[in-house]
Amino acid sequence: MRLASVRLNREIRTALVDGEEAAILAASAPTPDDAVRDPEAMAAVLRAGKDAARHPLGSLDLLAPLRRFNRDVLCTGWNYWDHFEESKGKREGQDPKERPQHPTFFTKGPDTVIGPRDDIAWDPDISAKWDYEAEVALVIGRDGRSIPEDRALEHVAGYLVANDVSQRDLQRAHGGQWLKGKSIDRTMPLGPWLTTPDEIADPHNLAITFDLNGRRLQQASTGQTAFTFAQIIAELSWGMTLRAGDVVLTGTPSGIGNAREPQIFLADGDELVTRVEGLGELRNRMVRTSLT
Amino acid sequence: MRLASVRLNREIRTALVDGEEAAILAASAPTPDDAVRDPEAMAAVLRAGKDAARHPLGSLDLLAPLRRFNRDVLCTGWNYWDHFEESKGKREGQDPKERPQHPTFFTKGPDTVIGPRDDIAWDPDISAKWDYEAEVALVIGRDGRSIPEDRALEHVAGYLVANDVSQRDLQRAHGGQWLKGKSIDRTMPLGPWLTTPDEIADPHNLAITFDLNGRRLQQASTGQTAFTFAQIIAELSWGMTLRAGDVVLTGTPSGIGNAREPQIFLADGDELVTRVEGLGELRNRMVRTSLT
Repeated sequence: MRLASVRLNREIRTALVDGEEAAILAASAPTPDDAVRDPEAMAAVLRAGKDAARHPLGSLDLLAPLRRFNRDVLCTGWNYWDHFEESKGKREGQDPKERPQHPTFFTKGPDTVIGPRDDIAWDPDISAKWDYEAEVALVIGRDGRSIPEDRALEHVAGYLVANDVSQRDLQRAHGGQWLKGKSIDRTMPLGPWLTTPDEIADPHNLAITFDLNGRRLQQASTGQTAFTFAQIIAELSWGMTLRAGDVVLTGTPSGIGNAREPQIFLADGDELVTRVEGLGELRNRMVRTSLT
Repeated sequence: MRLASVRLNREIRTALVDGEEAAILAASAPTPDDAVRDPEAMAAVLRAGKDAARHPLGSLDLLAPLRRFNRDVLCTGWNYWDHFEESKGKREGQDPKERPQHPTFFTKGPDTVIGPRDDIAWDPDISAKWDYEAEVALVIGRDGRSIPEDRALEHVAGYLVANDVSQRDLQRAHGGQWLKGKSIDRTMPLGPWLTTPDEIADPHNLAITFDLNGRRLQQASTGQTAFTFAQIIAELSWGMTLRAGDVVLTGTPSGIGNAREPQIFLADGDELVTRVEGLGELRNRMVRTSLT
């Protein structure tokens, strides 16, 4: 199943995407936020989809599929070794061969989240170094603490595409903790819909790409992650309850703008396409917006 | 006003603390979580307190005054220069005189929060380095983004005492980002009640202390912060909306266990008293608990 949120006649409705069409459910149907928190709501969405009117996918106004958050968006840093080597090794004078034994975790504020076709707020007064990070996001569907790695994927309600747009100068200016450079409002597209695990044969065999103004800048496979999605869930939940509805980003591959020579930073009018095989694509434009 | 949450006959009730007594409001009264989000609810609490039955404060079963969270608990690191010098300078080979120009921000998971008299979960399988950090917490009462410093305190609905109990080994083991070593379940006492700003003549003239098993280990004044509470709100909200109900910790003074010689780490049975002048005190015990 692929669960989307769409705006139709000024109402927010749940939709089930099927190829080039989507069945739009009644306004009373559960939302994707309900469905990831409650297996009965998930089953009700599936049932409701059978009789619902179908619309061409291209005609729909897609919103962020998840719109209610329990807490900050959980994120994984340096989770593709080639990205670790291009950034930490090069920039901080550390030995890039000294690979960490545990994943790096941080958070983003929930007000970062925007829809899969929304404009990304860009304000040069906030930062001079706007960067992109194509990522797979997963959403938790079952509460758990200290979840064993071999049971971890049973806690996943679905997968989405995200772009963890970051402000590199703010990441460094606040004592080396990344929260501030990861939490600017309206900068993280999420979507285009939630894909349930049964649709994905192997979540670690998906192509992930990022294109900026038609130029491919990131290209990898989710098979290249340093820590698997199951390891991320096991480590993140170690002593800390993960709850149904929590969103976990799983890291970006190499090719980010800050690590290039010459560097590339996002600017007003830039067109971003972030794509993960089997999960769909985000299409967003940077648009100058006052955030101060 | 001092707003508490108490358990009475298995119900959770709002209470107004007045000296050695507390007026317990009807079950229909707004909670402190409601009051910080809505000025009318705050006014209703004040009205309801006038007729409510009064109980001796010592007889009450105090809960965490805030129990509904919008997002992760926002935190400030290294916000007393003497603590910055004892930790960053000494431990990481950096020049402790190179003081940062901006505050350090990170988050804690909401499941860390416990009440002002609750036991703190202590599990040696999770960490070998359990440390304490006495702090002032403030709660936001009005939404705002890029809040000017000179208006920042108008966004504060009240103050509380917190102890940002941390696992120093986990803070370091995850790529240098602190989230994981700050987010173990049931480790952050918060309370004892929410004190509204009108009760505090000067929030930067309060004694803050921490006692472990009767020995004073932290003692400072909130006048010693590196960045004022107003500066923290201004910097934190720069490009990132702060919402009514968000909780912001403001940093700990020197004297933490990890920076001492010999080091002191918390252990099963330890008794912790965390106190801020005018805001009350937390009394907690470390109790061995399996978190795995």
